[in-house]
Amino acid sequence: MIELAAEPLTKAAFAPFGDVIEMEGRASFPINQGFAERFNDLAIVDVSDDGGTTNVSIIVANPRPMPIALQVMERHPLGSQFFVSLQERDWLIAVCTDPKDVTSYRIFRAIGRQGINYHKGAWHHPLLVFDRDSRFLVVDRKGPGKNLEENWLDGDKSLRITP
Amino acid sequence: MIELAAEPLTKAAFAPFGDVIEMEGRASFPINQGFAERFNDLAIVDVSDDGGTTNVSIIVANPRPMPIALQVMERHPLGSQFFVSLQERDWLIAVCTDPKDVTSYRIFRAIGRQGINYHKGAWHHPLLVFDRDSRFLVVDRKGPGKNLEENWLDGDKSLRITP
Repeated sequence: MIELAAEPLTKAAFAPFGDVIEMEGRASFPINQGFAERFNDLAIVDVSDDGGTTNVSIIVANPRPMPIALQVMERHPLGSQFFVSLQERDWLIAVCTDPKDVTSYRIFRAIGRQGINYHKGAWHHPLLVFDRDSRFLVVDRKGPGKNLEENWLDGDKSLRITP
Repeated sequence: MIELAAEPLTKAAFAPFGDVIEMEGRASFPINQGFAERFNDLAIVDVSDDGGTTNVSIIVANPRPMPIALQVMERHPLGSQFFVSLQERDWLIAVCTDPKDVTSYRIFRAIGRQGINYHKGAWHHPLLVFDRDSRFLVVDRKGPGKNLEENWLDGDKSLRITP
């Protein structure tokens, strides 16, 4: 059994896997006659391969048993996929560059105001949340073609997370 | 001075202007090994005209003086534009089919769990919120071309909202 400790989610640390969707550290400009401020261009939506289009969804997630054991890594070879908490809740993100290489795994703890956008092909675990009925806005790809690869993990060598 | 009363936001009433992004009344299916439920395909993102691509933004809006007087109607002829509250806050939506025709205006009150997606070319007012620092996730278009038309309203005949 291997314990993986969560690290804070930052743009630099997450860059190999995708974008962090947040206002922090980003330029903004006033709009709406001065009644609003806009932070533009926070993620690269990349869904048009092989005739894909944009899919806007809400996903409601529930916690897995604690301590959290990673069960399966997945990736979407045809499109990006973003997740933003609709309740400002902290959550966990598990990614890797090679699901068979334990040393390639990274665990990030997002604060409620941080969303993430997995780049096309980035290996990630399904949603890991702390609270019941955690709602996310999700923008990813719909369309023809096989856009899901899964790598199931070996329970005997289960990767566990220390949040 | 003309008073416009807000009505509840429903898919049917809003259909001439765009999509309502919500789980209510939508089909869902289980994902993530049963730990999550997905509500798919809640809005039509339509941003690719004239070389456009998807722009993911956060907009932080502040209330206008009460009673709210509509100031300017705008539309985006080249792309859709969606808004989802990141704090589950109620907000107001003002739309019309012809900004010069007072009888064409509709005011909707969205509950915090309802987002909306303006279809390409739908006339709408800039954000109308009740609380300071109201944050929205926004997905619209970036790219070449003129994607903003404005119609300023005549202050003498100002349209006022009864929330």
